[in-house]
Amino acid sequence: MKGEYRMPNESNIAESKITEMAKAARAASMEIASCSSAKKNEALLNIAKSIEKDAPVIKTENKKDLNKAKDAGLSAAMTDRLTISDVTIKSMTDGLRDVAALDDPVGSMSKTWQRPNQLQVARMRIPLGVIGIIYESRPNVTVDAAGLCLKAGNAVILRGGSEAFHSNQALAVSIRNALKESGLPGEIVQVVPVSDRKAVNVLLGQEEYIDLIIPRGGEGLIRFVVENSKIPVLKHYKGVCHVFVDEDADLEMAEKICFNSKVHRPGVCNAMETMLVHKAVAEDFLPVMGKSFAKAGVKLKGCKETCRILPDAEPASDADWAEEYLDLILAVKVVDDMDQAIRHMTEFGSNHTEAIVTQNYDRSRKFLRDVDSSVVLVNASTRFNDGGQLGLGAEIGISTSKLHAFGPMGLEELTTTKFVVFGEGQVREE
Amino acid sequence: MKGEYRMPNESNIAESKITEMAKAARAASMEIASCSSAKKNEALLNIAKSIEKDAPVIKTENKKDLNKAKDAGLSAAMTDRLTISDVTIKSMTDGLRDVAALDDPVGSMSKTWQRPNQLQVARMRIPLGVIGIIYESRPNVTVDAAGLCLKAGNAVILRGGSEAFHSNQALAVSIRNALKESGLPGEIVQVVPVSDRKAVNVLLGQEEYIDLIIPRGGEGLIRFVVENSKIPVLKHYKGVCHVFVDEDADLEMAEKICFNSKVHRPGVCNAMETMLVHKAVAEDFLPVMGKSFAKAGVKLKGCKETCRILPDAEPASDADWAEEYLDLILAVKVVDDMDQAIRHMTEFGSNHTEAIVTQNYDRSRKFLRDVDSSVVLVNASTRFNDGGQLGLGAEIGISTSKLHAFGPMGLEELTTTKFVVFGEGQVREE
Repeated sequence: MKGEYRMPNESNIAESKITEMAKAARAASMEIASCSSAKKNEALLNIAKSIEKDAPVIKTENKKDLNKAKDAGLSAAMTDRLTISDVTIKSMTDGLRDVAALDDPVGSMSKTWQRPNQLQVARMRIPLGVIGIIYESRPNVTVDAAGLCLKAGNAVILRGGSEAFHSNQALAVSIRNALKESGLPGEIVQVVPVSDRKAVNVLLGQEEYIDLIIPRGGEGLIRFVVENSKIPVLKHYKGVCHVFVDEDADLEMAEKICFNSKVHRPGVCNAMETMLVHKAVAEDFLPVMGKSFAKAGVKLKGCKETCRILPDAEPASDADWAEEYLDLILAVKVVDDMDQAIRHMTEFGSNHTEAIVTQNYDRSRKFLRDVDSSVVLVNASTRFNDGGQLGLGAEIGISTSKLHAFGPMGLEELTTTKFVVFGEGQVREE
Repeated sequence: MKGEYRMPNESNIAESKITEMAKAARAASMEIASCSSAKKNEALLNIAKSIEKDAPVIKTENKKDLNKAKDAGLSAAMTDRLTISDVTIKSMTDGLRDVAALDDPVGSMSKTWQRPNQLQVARMRIPLGVIGIIYESRPNVTVDAAGLCLKAGNAVILRGGSEAFHSNQALAVSIRNALKESGLPGEIVQVVPVSDRKAVNVLLGQEEYIDLIIPRGGEGLIRFVVENSKIPVLKHYKGVCHVFVDEDADLEMAEKICFNSKVHRPGVCNAMETMLVHKAVAEDFLPVMGKSFAKAGVKLKGCKETCRILPDAEPASDADWAEEYLDLILAVKVVDDMDQAIRHMTEFGSNHTEAIVTQNYDRSRKFLRDVDSSVVLVNASTRFNDGGQLGLGAEIGISTSKLHAFGPMGLEELTTTKFVVFGEGQVREE
């Protein structure tokens, strides 16, 4: 027996600790599932107040992470995302108050119908149960995700990046205190208290207690989660978004939309990565568009025809068509017609966001119908693929796979429906 | 190099064949996705006619399966389910005509709203893409599932049990001919042509081409699929369904409902497996109910109190409360109140179907809200958890997990939604 003795180490602690957390989350999920909207909103407002009160401690703990980041030589951009300033605190607490103001999806019955035997049937919206969120860096996700999951009646287990460990722990304490003060179990929002990577694997194996995993971060993190999870995952790989400038486009509008889609915030998933231009307008459109892109510092990688019209463009390689640059770089291709544009999107796109600029009615209808992406737009910037912008109130992420949710996910996507049946003694006769 | 040469065997054929089928299904799914409802309905009616025309061949091929079943000593019940008679043919073709008559969910936009910047946003229903169905025995599933997937705009790959191999191949040929005659690719409906078990594993690894797997069969098959699939699975483990007879129940109604829930068709997933009776009515209700159950040959396994009131009942063991008998056996427990009944359902149930019999308004509301099952009923038989009975038109299965679909799945559950956005040049300013 002596040989079998294993020293306790962080991995072993992680395993038992996380199983315990998952069980506690399941129990807490039953309490929050049947809470009234008023009670949930009160808790959200209490969390906002608690974070405001605890701001000094939270910022002190955040400093520990920032110092560690400095020692590790983290990039300025990463350090910026990690920093909790007064502005970050305000944005987090404003967010919680916004979520409190949203309609509660739980308990709503949007459809109801009657059967020939007088049974009345309805679909009632209910929470999913326990949600696991695995994310990187930004500590504001801890608060945003906790708020949305709670409002939708779910318990949540959060696992942030190890570089934000102290910040997330401080936020967790503040949230837990507010939950208890609201008369709710603190286990509704739990933050994994071990920085060990193994914790993620253990979390992904708790299929008995966790109903859904949402990973938020780079493609590497997401692939790791998808490959290792026994729990269903709502995933978002990448956004290779296209704008197609049709032969019947208003070219001034096209310039505005393409510029906004590429330049407004090039580092995010709904930025345009490839611009497709109908050959009939390429000679007129590309030189003007090329000039505004040049002014904004956008580097173009073009097909042969693009490079002929814009000699400054660099020739695109095959790999460019599938590239998510997340930078001021754009692939440009001249196409024969909309069908070729759609085929290109199907071959190289990521089912994320595609837009057409056109004044042609038939093609606008066909494009909306036939393009297989989570958000398809006519005459608007790709940057509108965002839960807030589309009116969902808030967003927990964007799904590019089709099951359960496709596109930006708001409160409703954190719920499901059950059937409720009102009878007066009906039985099956046949 | 010589040492590495592998003899071709059925496994190797299965692997390349199934990858090829999955690719072809993906290509075909794009064609069927943009088909009009009229075209899809025409194809469904052509498949019905084709199966009627090919009935003699189908029955001859079915004989081969039946002879093999006889040699293998299959039970009478299994043989019965395997048999394709004229009645089976009629039921399959009637089913196809019923599906043709249903509303097409694809392209519908049930919600639309406008944003402050005048963007009009809507959610449009679209097909899922490619669906894989893995099932046992009954060859009618081949036709039913093919019809539903096609109507919802999806391509489908079907993998039936090896005992129905010849029957399914004959049905596949008939369906394929009808699709071609309708001007559609035959690859919209494919039946796996190898009986090798390895085929299932290969199918479950085609995550690049297949969007959803639906297993239909016993718990063993479903667990195997869930554990081996890289593709999302809509699953249904078992139905441990409860009826709670409340203290304010109309006891005559309760007797009718409990009898129907248990006896109408004991071998199916929505049959009652445990009856919970409020202690205030147990002395009145159990003797009467016990008599009707005894007449129908139902064997009772009771808690201590039940056995006191009904001395013929056998004492229930702990395992009985979680048992899916699928037979004329029923577990019976006397409870103190509805809360205890709900706790019992939570601990031992399977989130499938639970009913309450009561005339009490508050408890009916609370039961509907708090019971965490895919179908929750007041004063109606559990046997109504069925797509046809609840008005979904048809059913591809019942999901007892919450993601994407919870409860009976009809045409709508074989689709998802994308966001479509109508603009006139909007860009993001902030």
